[in-house]
Amino acid sequence: MASVGIGIIGFGVVGGGVIDVLRRDRGTIAARTGVDLELRAVISLPPYKTTDVLGAKLGSDIGLLTEDPQIRIALLLVGGTTFAKDLALACLAAGKHVVTSNKALIASHGDELFAAAKAKGVAISFEAAVAGGIPIIGALRDGLAANRIESITGILNGTTNFILTMMEQKQWSYHQALAEAQRLGYAEADPTLDVNGTDTAHKLAILSRIAFGIRVPLTALRIEGIQNVTAHDMASAARLKSRIKLLAMATQRDEGLELHVAPTLVPLDHPLAAVHMNYNGVYVVGSSAGPQLFTGQGAGALPTASAVLSDVIDVALGRAEQTFGSFGFVHQPKPPHFLAEADERTASYARFVTPDKPGILAGITQVLSARNISIRSIYQEETDEHQQASIELVTHPARGGDFLEAVAEIDRKGLTVATTVCYRRL
Amino acid sequence: MASVGIGIIGFGVVGGGVIDVLRRDRGTIAARTGVDLELRAVISLPPYKTTDVLGAKLGSDIGLLTEDPQIRIALLLVGGTTFAKDLALACLAAGKHVVTSNKALIASHGDELFAAAKAKGVAISFEAAVAGGIPIIGALRDGLAANRIESITGILNGTTNFILTMMEQKQWSYHQALAEAQRLGYAEADPTLDVNGTDTAHKLAILSRIAFGIRVPLTALRIEGIQNVTAHDMASAARLKSRIKLLAMATQRDEGLELHVAPTLVPLDHPLAAVHMNYNGVYVVGSSAGPQLFTGQGAGALPTASAVLSDVIDVALGRAEQTFGSFGFVHQPKPPHFLAEADERTASYARFVTPDKPGILAGITQVLSARNISIRSIYQEETDEHQQASIELVTHPARGGDFLEAVAEIDRKGLTVATTVCYRRL
Repeated sequence: MASVGIGIIGFGVVGGGVIDVLRRDRGTIAARTGVDLELRAVISLPPYKTTDVLGAKLGSDIGLLTEDPQIRIALLLVGGTTFAKDLALACLAAGKHVVTSNKALIASHGDELFAAAKAKGVAISFEAAVAGGIPIIGALRDGLAANRIESITGILNGTTNFILTMMEQKQWSYHQALAEAQRLGYAEADPTLDVNGTDTAHKLAILSRIAFGIRVPLTALRIEGIQNVTAHDMASAARLKSRIKLLAMATQRDEGLELHVAPTLVPLDHPLAAVHMNYNGVYVVGSSAGPQLFTGQGAGALPTASAVLSDVIDVALGRAEQTFGSFGFVHQPKPPHFLAEADERTASYARFVTPDKPGILAGITQVLSARNISIRSIYQEETDEHQQASIELVTHPARGGDFLEAVAEIDRKGLTVATTVCYRRL
Repeated sequence: MASVGIGIIGFGVVGGGVIDVLRRDRGTIAARTGVDLELRAVISLPPYKTTDVLGAKLGSDIGLLTEDPQIRIALLLVGGTTFAKDLALACLAAGKHVVTSNKALIASHGDELFAAAKAKGVAISFEAAVAGGIPIIGALRDGLAANRIESITGILNGTTNFILTMMEQKQWSYHQALAEAQRLGYAEADPTLDVNGTDTAHKLAILSRIAFGIRVPLTALRIEGIQNVTAHDMASAARLKSRIKLLAMATQRDEGLELHVAPTLVPLDHPLAAVHMNYNGVYVVGSSAGPQLFTGQGAGALPTASAVLSDVIDVALGRAEQTFGSFGFVHQPKPPHFLAEADERTASYARFVTPDKPGILAGITQVLSARNISIRSIYQEETDEHQQASIELVTHPARGGDFLEAVAEIDRKGLTVATTVCYRRL
């Protein structure tokens, strides 16, 4: 069995994980797949956490990889979109296939990289960029190749899912749960891109690309993070037999494509409701296969290494070139119509904080009714007279803009005394 | 884009589904994958439910397929293991790749077919043979290529899962639920191979092959179906916050490989507990990826057609040949040790029907204790004096043989007055 030479760029968590898997399982992988992987270079800036890199050359000069004719595949396991892009282009220009875990890079610069790869007749693969070890890219692209994808609904960020799970299970505040996530290593010191939904948005853009054959400019995606989710919201969700999850949603409607990231009430009997802690889950509806669910660990050294190496094996077998060469990354004849938030269709939850006087409920229900918004459930907890009241309701599916305009009108009419809390409800 | 010629053998539910998908989506598939599929022949015995087969030749002579040089791929969509095997070998001998949904064929004759395919330099693919539209073969083989698979736990038969769901949700008897399944088309007129666990066993054998790189003689698999599950068992499971599912289990232990099919108590918080009706689910634990769950529709015309066509596209792209040529279908240096049932390690449930006299509970617990079996929970419902009593208990994990021997001894000692009902508990 001939060996296939590979080089790693980036000796962080993922790079370390790949090396650990190769140290333990190089032989098993060779027996199982027919691919014997030889690590020949590790490119990273010192200091190095260890110099035990399975006999590969270890250094900071990218030439150790690009100028080694025996290296066929470059594993780009660094983050960011500037240096990472330059490194990717250098590897492609040198005729190396590229396998990456960098979602921001693919989401932001996918077109340029795909074009560069095609020009050199090599492939760029990115299973590890979305949902960690879950082979979701392969499932969407290959397993569901004969389907029109109708919708994707995903929990794609382990940090925020861990925080929301802790908030619910322990009745903690957002800040308590974030601190615990950081303590356990599920959140970074600067968790901004996770908690504000950006990381999830990058992954949704990538999945949508594969699923719908379109470019997804990040500006087409509405993004809302979890920073404003409160323990009170969690309790309200529980009363409604739901739980709050940060969902990435892409839905193909006749009028266009609906794409957003937002914390959403998920009914307890929905398959995604059972995805907890740092796990990810992707719920896909295909035109022939119907609904499917894929869940697993969305991050971490070994799950991500599993996805990186599955791509490496796919490339080494010569399979990726065929897929990459023919897959219709952009096969829609014209750019899709991205539905505005106002034109989304969704059920909603609202919690109104109202003054204690007659006519409030009548006023609220009349504003909704005038916009043709039908109420699915309503709840007003008992309060003493002369206290503020809290009125929570859930609507049936309605036009998003109509609902938000109704909420704004309810505020303008003085029917509320605090900001109304709104969530989509799945 | 050049067309790829295909031929279908079998114009039943699956064949009809494939034709329906091609009728609707040939163009979409071509745009998405770069593969334009041209149906050139449909081989089946008359009478034909329709002659509208997209312009293909329709007839009963296999030569319409094997002798057409423009047909590259044969879709073998018939059941059984005698004619189907002959047809498969004829197609392979004619240099055609074969894509099949026939699990009994692959489970029983996989070796012979793989060898024939390799000898001709063609591929044989069978995603549709297991779990309908769920791309589980691809996930196990490609997505988890860099993992050692530690265990597979699956709900792999929609008929039995539908029956068990109905029994639980409506408190029906097995026979009532089976009649409803047949009425709705979820069970055949002769449901034997579904309800006795054989269909599930075939699928487990195929998954184990891919996961562990071993041959799985069907004699190595212990099979127990659902024909003896009662509404009373369902109620007992519910009291234990579990539900009964027909599980296929393959577990790699240090001592060997544990393989069985049996109705099992599944705790409600296990991911597989949420797989209902005719849906399938596969829970896999990989050495690097960790636990993953794949769920979706396990049968039906369109879900199965989705899997068949994903294989056809994989073959048409030239990918399957590379995988098939190098994948280590049998890569373990020596045959595995299949653990005997006695050596399995599992938690168990038992319901003893006991006479009304003192010393019964002491006797039962003493027999278990003497075999080092630890009790996790126990429940004896209140009954009047001089009535039979029912004692239900759940053990912690123990050696299967020790538990079954304890149950037998309890019977021999006259501590019971009816057959003891036992289940594994996940």
